[in-house]
Amino acid sequence: MLVVMKPHATPAEVEAVVEKIRGMGLTPHAIPGAQRVAIGVTGNKGAVEPGPFTALPGVADCIRVSQPFKLVSREVKEEDTVIDVGGVKLGGPSIVVMAGPCSVESKEQLLEAAHGVKKLGARFLRGGAWKPRTSPYEFQGMGEEGLKLLALAREQTGLQVVTEVMDPETLPLCVEYADVLQIGARNMQNFSLLKRLGTVNKPVLLKRGPSATLREWLMAAEYVVAHGNYQVALCERGIRTFETMTRNTLDLNAVPVLKALTHLPVVVDPSHGIGLRRHVPAMARAGIAAGADAIIVEVHPRPECALSDGQQSLDLAEFGALMTQVKVIAGAIGRPVA
Amino acid sequence: MLVVMKPHATPAEVEAVVEKIRGMGLTPHAIPGAQRVAIGVTGNKGAVEPGPFTALPGVADCIRVSQPFKLVSREVKEEDTVIDVGGVKLGGPSIVVMAGPCSVESKEQLLEAAHGVKKLGARFLRGGAWKPRTSPYEFQGMGEEGLKLLALAREQTGLQVVTEVMDPETLPLCVEYADVLQIGARNMQNFSLLKRLGTVNKPVLLKRGPSATLREWLMAAEYVVAHGNYQVALCERGIRTFETMTRNTLDLNAVPVLKALTHLPVVVDPSHGIGLRRHVPAMARAGIAAGADAIIVEVHPRPECALSDGQQSLDLAEFGALMTQVKVIAGAIGRPVA
Amino acid sequence: MLVVMKPHATPAEVEAVVEKIRGMGLTPHAIPGAQRVAIGVTGNKGAVEPGPFTALPGVADCIRVSQPFKLVSREVKEEDTVIDVGGVKLGGPSIVVMAGPCSVESKEQLLEAAHGVKKLGARFLRGGAWKPRTSPYEFQGMGEEGLKLLALAREQTGLQVVTEVMDPETLPLCVEYADVLQIGARNMQNFSLLKRLGTVNKPVLLKRGPSATLREWLMAAEYVVAHGNYQVALCERGIRTFETMTRNTLDLNAVPVLKALTHLPVVVDPSHGIGLRRHVPAMARAGIAAGADAIIVEVHPRPECALSDGQQSLDLAEFGALMTQVKVIAGAIGRPVA
Amino acid sequence: MLVVMKPHATPAEVEAVVEKIRGMGLTPHAIPGAQRVAIGVTGNKGAVEPGPFTALPGVADCIRVSQPFKLVSREVKEEDTVIDVGGVKLGGPSIVVMAGPCSVESKEQLLEAAHGVKKLGARFLRGGAWKPRTSPYEFQGMGEEGLKLLALAREQTGLQVVTEVMDPETLPLCVEYADVLQIGARNMQNFSLLKRLGTVNKPVLLKRGPSATLREWLMAAEYVVAHGNYQVALCERGIRTFETMTRNTLDLNAVPVLKALTHLPVVVDPSHGIGLRRHVPAMARAGIAAGADAIIVEVHPRPECALSDGQQSLDLAEFGALMTQVKVIAGAIGRPVA
Repeated sequence: MLVVMKPHATPAEVEAVVEKIRGMGLTPHAIPGAQRVAIGVTGNKGAVEPGPFTALPGVADCIRVSQPFKLVSREVKEEDTVIDVGGVKLGGPSIVVMAGPCSVESKEQLLEAAHGVKKLGARFLRGGAWKPRTSPYEFQGMGEEGLKLLALAREQTGLQVVTEVMDPETLPLCVEYADVLQIGARNMQNFSLLKRLGTVNKPVLLKRGPSATLREWLMAAEYVVAHGNYQVALCERGIRTFETMTRNTLDLNAVPVLKALTHLPVVVDPSHGIGLRRHVPAMARAGIAAGADAIIVEVHPRPECALSDGQQSLDLAEFGALMTQVKVIAGAIGRPVA
Repeated sequence: MLVVMKPHATPAEVEAVVEKIRGMGLTPHAIPGAQRVAIGVTGNKGAVEPGPFTALPGVADCIRVSQPFKLVSREVKEEDTVIDVGGVKLGGPSIVVMAGPCSVESKEQLLEAAHGVKKLGARFLRGGAWKPRTSPYEFQGMGEEGLKLLALAREQTGLQVVTEVMDPETLPLCVEYADVLQIGARNMQNFSLLKRLGTVNKPVLLKRGPSATLREWLMAAEYVVAHGNYQVALCERGIRTFETMTRNTLDLNAVPVLKALTHLPVVVDPSHGIGLRRHVPAMARAGIAAGADAIIVEVHPRPECALSDGQQSLDLAEFGALMTQVKVIAGAIGRPVA
Repeated sequence: MLVVMKPHATPAEVEAVVEKIRGMGLTPHAIPGAQRVAIGVTGNKGAVEPGPFTALPGVADCIRVSQPFKLVSREVKEEDTVIDVGGVKLGGPSIVVMAGPCSVESKEQLLEAAHGVKKLGARFLRGGAWKPRTSPYEFQGMGEEGLKLLALAREQTGLQVVTEVMDPETLPLCVEYADVLQIGARNMQNFSLLKRLGTVNKPVLLKRGPSATLREWLMAAEYVVAHGNYQVALCERGIRTFETMTRNTLDLNAVPVLKALTHLPVVVDPSHGIGLRRHVPAMARAGIAAGADAIIVEVHPRPECALSDGQQSLDLAEFGALMTQVKVIAGAIGRPVA
Repeated sequence: MLVVMKPHATPAEVEAVVEKIRGMGLTPHAIPGAQRVAIGVTGNKGAVEPGPFTALPGVADCIRVSQPFKLVSREVKEEDTVIDVGGVKLGGPSIVVMAGPCSVESKEQLLEAAHGVKKLGARFLRGGAWKPRTSPYEFQGMGEEGLKLLALAREQTGLQVVTEVMDPETLPLCVEYADVLQIGARNMQNFSLLKRLGTVNKPVLLKRGPSATLREWLMAAEYVVAHGNYQVALCERGIRTFETMTRNTLDLNAVPVLKALTHLPVVVDPSHGIGLRRHVPAMARAGIAAGADAIIVEVHPRPECALSDGQQSLDLAEFGALMTQVKVIAGAIGRPVA
C-alpha cells in the first residue's frame, strides 16, 4: 500500500504516519517526490486496510499497489527517478552515453580509451576490474589495480566511472573508487549482494539476467530499493533465446514496457545485446528510438587485441561514428545528448 | 556456386553458361543485376569445380557461396532487391508503411480503415481474409468475400493490398485479388506452400516463424526463390521467448543481421512483435532506426470491437501520431517515407 | 459445454439434444463412451446456459468445460481414447513401439529395416515419402514411390504404416497407402491441413511444434477432432530451447501433464527429441517411465549412409538392445509391450 | 592437457611432473584414480607441448583435452566420481534419494519431515535455512536457527544434511552444520562463491542455472574443482522455456549427455523441474530411467501450509508411494536404492 501525503503535509504529520506503520509491525518507506511525499508500506502478508491511515492529519490518499514490485513501481512514484552522478543526470531529458573497454587491461589501454571516448562525447567510463568469465582459465581482471586505473582515468578526463561489483568482499573497494556500481547479468538474483547494495550510497546499474522476466528484474531492483538505496538504473543487455547468430537477443521490447511500469532509468547495452561489432550502432540507434535513457557501449582502442569481448567492441573511429548517429536519433525524438 | 558474367556479356554467352550448367545435371538461376548478370548454380551435392566455366566467353568470375542459403545471399547478389508493387518500391531508399486491420470484418470496417490509413500516409493496406487462429472456435475470416472487399478498398484508395495465403487451394484466389501474398509465421516452413509460391508472379511477404532461426528463415525464402519467384520480402514479427509480459519478443537484432546477409527487403511488424497497443509506436520507431525497409502495423477504426488482435491494434488517431514519428526517425537516418 | 446423457438414454433422447443444440445455432459433437454418451457443444461466443438442456429427457448433467480445448479434454471424456490400428491398440494398457527410417530411400533399405524392426518387436513401421527439409537443396523424399514401398513392407511384415502428410494435394494418396497419418512439427498449426484431416477416416499422429505450448498443441488436435476425426494421438518430439548440445529438448514434462489434461494417446519420439544416436535409448526409457503410451524411433540398416537424420538413427543391433530396455521399464510400471 | 602416469609410478615421479608443470608457470591438478594417477594441466593460453613430459620417468601418456572444461571431463578422468557422504555413496551403483522441505520452518515441521522421509527410505535431508526468493517481501528463511534444526534432525535420524549456501558470509556456518552444500540455480555463475567452495572440504551440489547451457554448467563445476574441491555433483532442476503450464522444463536430456561428458554424479530435482505436485513422481521415475544417480524431492508434512513451494511438495504418504516407484524403476535398470 502507498500512503500519499498532502502537498503541504508537515514533517510531523509524515512522521506520525511512519510511526503508525511501524506500530503495526510493517515497514515504512518514505518516497520523496517533487510535489509531495508518499510512504510505501511493505512487510504485510495480505492487503493492508487503509482505514487507520486515511483519518490521520496530512494524509491525502491510500493506494493499493497491484504489482508485486512496490517501491520501483510507477503506481507508487509517478515521476521519473533522475540519478545525479557527479552532475550527469541519468533518467532525465538527456540521453547519456557510457563507453569504455570490457576489462581494464593496462594503464595505457584504459587511458587511451578514456581520453578517446571523452573527446567523442561519452560522460561515463565503463571498465571491469573483476570479470565474471564462463571459464576459470580465462582472464579474471586486474582487481584493485584496475579500480585505481579507473580512478586515475576519471581524474584525467572528468568521466564518471561505472564498474562491476562481483561480491560483498570487494564491494567496499568498488564503493571507494567507482561512481556507479554495476551488477552483472549473472548476479541479477544474487540476493545477498543486492541487499548489501541497498545499504551503500552509490547508484546501482542492475543488468538483466539472461533469462529473467521483466517482473523478476523489477523484483531484483526492489531488493536494492527496499533495503534503502533508491538510486537504481536498469540495463537491458540481451536475453537468451534459441537464436545463435547473435550472442544474445537484445530485447528492446523491454524498454517501453519498463518505462511504463517503473520510474527507474532504463539503459541499453547494444554491445552485449547483439554481440557483433558491426551491428552495435544499429542496435544503439534502435535502443534510443525505443525510449532508453542511456546506452552503454564497449569501446577498445584495439578491439582485435582485447583480453575479453573484442568481437563486440568498437574502436574509437567506430565510436565516433556511433556518437553522430546517437545525436541524430536523440534529436529526432527531442532529447539532447548529455 | 555463382558464375558472374562480364558487364557486357551477350545473351548468347549467358545462354551458353546456362546450358553448360544444365548439361552437368545442375540447376541454373540467372540473377539479374543493374551492372551485370550472375548465374547461381544449385543442385550440386559437393563443391562445384569452377574450371569448366572460367574458360567460357563472357565469364568474369566463379564464386563459391559459403552460406547454406544461396540465391537470397548477398554473396550471390550484392545490390538490394527492390520490389516494385504498383509503383511503390519496397527495399529501396524509401521507408514503406503498410497498415490495416488484422481481419477483414465488414465493408464498413475495411473501407473506413483503408481511407483512414491512406489519408495518413500508408501505401499498403493489410487485412486477412482467412485467419489462422489458435482455436477452431474463433473467427476464421470472411474468405473470398474478404478478398473482394480488399480489392474494392484498393480501387477506392489506390493502396496496394497485402493478405495472407493459408493453403494451395485458396492461393489462386489470393493471386487474383491481392498485390502481395503474406505467408504467416505458422506457415513459414510449410514447404509445399512455399514451393507453390515460387511459381506465381506476385511478391511474397514471408513472416518469421516464432521459433525460426535466421538461417531457417532465409532457407524458407530460398525455397520460394529457388522455385522461381525472386520477389520475396522478410517480415520480423516477434519470436517466442520466456517473457510473458509481451505477446512475442520483437527481435530487432534480426534487422541489421539480415540486411548484411541477404539482399531481400526487411519489414518489421511491431504490432504482433510486442502485442501491446500502447507500445507499438516505440517498436515501430526502433525498427526503422535499426534499418528496416518497411513497417506493417495493425490499425482498426475501433480496436475495442475488433474480432481479432484488438489489444494490439491502433486506432486512426494513434496511427496518425505514429506516422509523424515514423517520418521523424526516417528523416534522421536520411530515408524518405514512400 | 458438455451435455452428459444418462447411462440408458435412448437414441431418440440423444437426437433430441442434438437438435436442440443445432436449433440454437451451435454445433453438437456426440462423444461415444463406454458407459454413456456425452454431447459437446461448440460454436458459442460466451457461456452456454444449461437450463434448456437439463430439463430434456435422458439428460444426466450439464458441465461447463473450463479449458479452451473442449473435445480433446478429459473434462469432456474421462476415459482414455484407444485407437485401434489394424488390431494394435494405441492408448490402451500396452506400450506400442513404432520404428523405421526417417526417409524411404529404396526398396532394399526399407524392406531390410521393416523386417528387422518387425522381428525385434516393433508394431508400426515409420518412414517418410515426402520430407520437410530446411533446405530446398536436400533430399525431398521419393514421393508416391515411397508410399508404394511402405505398402509393400506392410504386406510382407504385417507392420502398420505411419507416414507424414505434407499437404492437401498428397493427402488422398497418403490415406490410400498408410495406416496412420503423421503431421510434422512444422505443420502443427497448418490449420487448413488440420481441417482436412478432420474429414478423413484414418488416425492422425500430431507432432508438437518446436515452440508450441501444450495449450496450442491441444488446440491443434481440437481442430482435427472438431472437424470430425476423433482418432488423434499426440507426439512429443522435442522443443526448441537455448541448449545446442542436443538437437532439440525432449520435453518429458509434457507426458504426465498431457495425460492429465486429455484422453488422447501420448507418443514420445526420442530420436528427434535428443537427436543423438547414443542417447536415444536413455530418452526412450525415460519417456515410458514418464507415462507415454508409445515410442517412435528412427532405425536405419546403415545409419551412416542415411539420406536424412543418420546422426540420430539406431542400427538394428542398437534397436534390439533398446527393445530389451523398453520391455524392462514397461514391465516395471505394469504395462506389457504390444 | 593431461599427463597420465604409469600404474606403478612412484610419488617422487609424480612430484617431478608436478614440479615441471609449475616450473612452466602452469597449474598442476593431481587427479587420483583407482588404477593410476593423472595430472591435469591448466593455465596455459594455447596448446601445451607434450614433449617435455613424455620423457620424464613414470609418464605413460600425454593427452590433449578437447573440451573447454578440463578437470570435470571424462577425457581427463574416465571412471565415475563417487562422493562418500557419511557412508552414503553418491555417484556409485546405488540410487540415492534426498528429501525434505523447501525451507526449514520450525522444529516440529522439520523433525516430522525428517523422521518421515527417513522411515520411508531417504538418505539425505534437504532444507533451506536461507532462501533465495524472487520478492524481498517473501519469507527469507530462519538463518542459523534453521541450520541448528537441520543438525538436530541429523542427530536424531542419521540422515545427511544438504542445504543451500547463498553467500561467502554464511558459508562457514553452512560448512559447520551441513554435510553437502547446495548452490542454487540463481547462483550457478556466482563465480566468487564458486571459488570459495573450491577451498572447503565439503561436497557441493551445483544446481543448473535456469538458462545455463550444459557447457556453462560444466564450466561452473570446473571453477569449484579447479580451486581444489573435487567433490561436486550436478543437479538438473529444470530450465526456462516458453512453456508456462509447468514451472520449469525439467531437461532430462541433460542426464545421458552429462553422464557421457563428465565423471561427476548427476542428480535430478523433479520438484522444481516440473513444479506440479501431482506430476513429481512421473518425472522422478523418468529421471532414474534416464540414468540419474540420485533424486532430490521436496516433501512437507503439510504442503498446503508450507511457507514456500507448497504447490510442488509431496506429503509423506505421496513420498512413500514415490519411494515404491523409485525402487521399481531402479531395480529394472539394475541399480539398488541406497
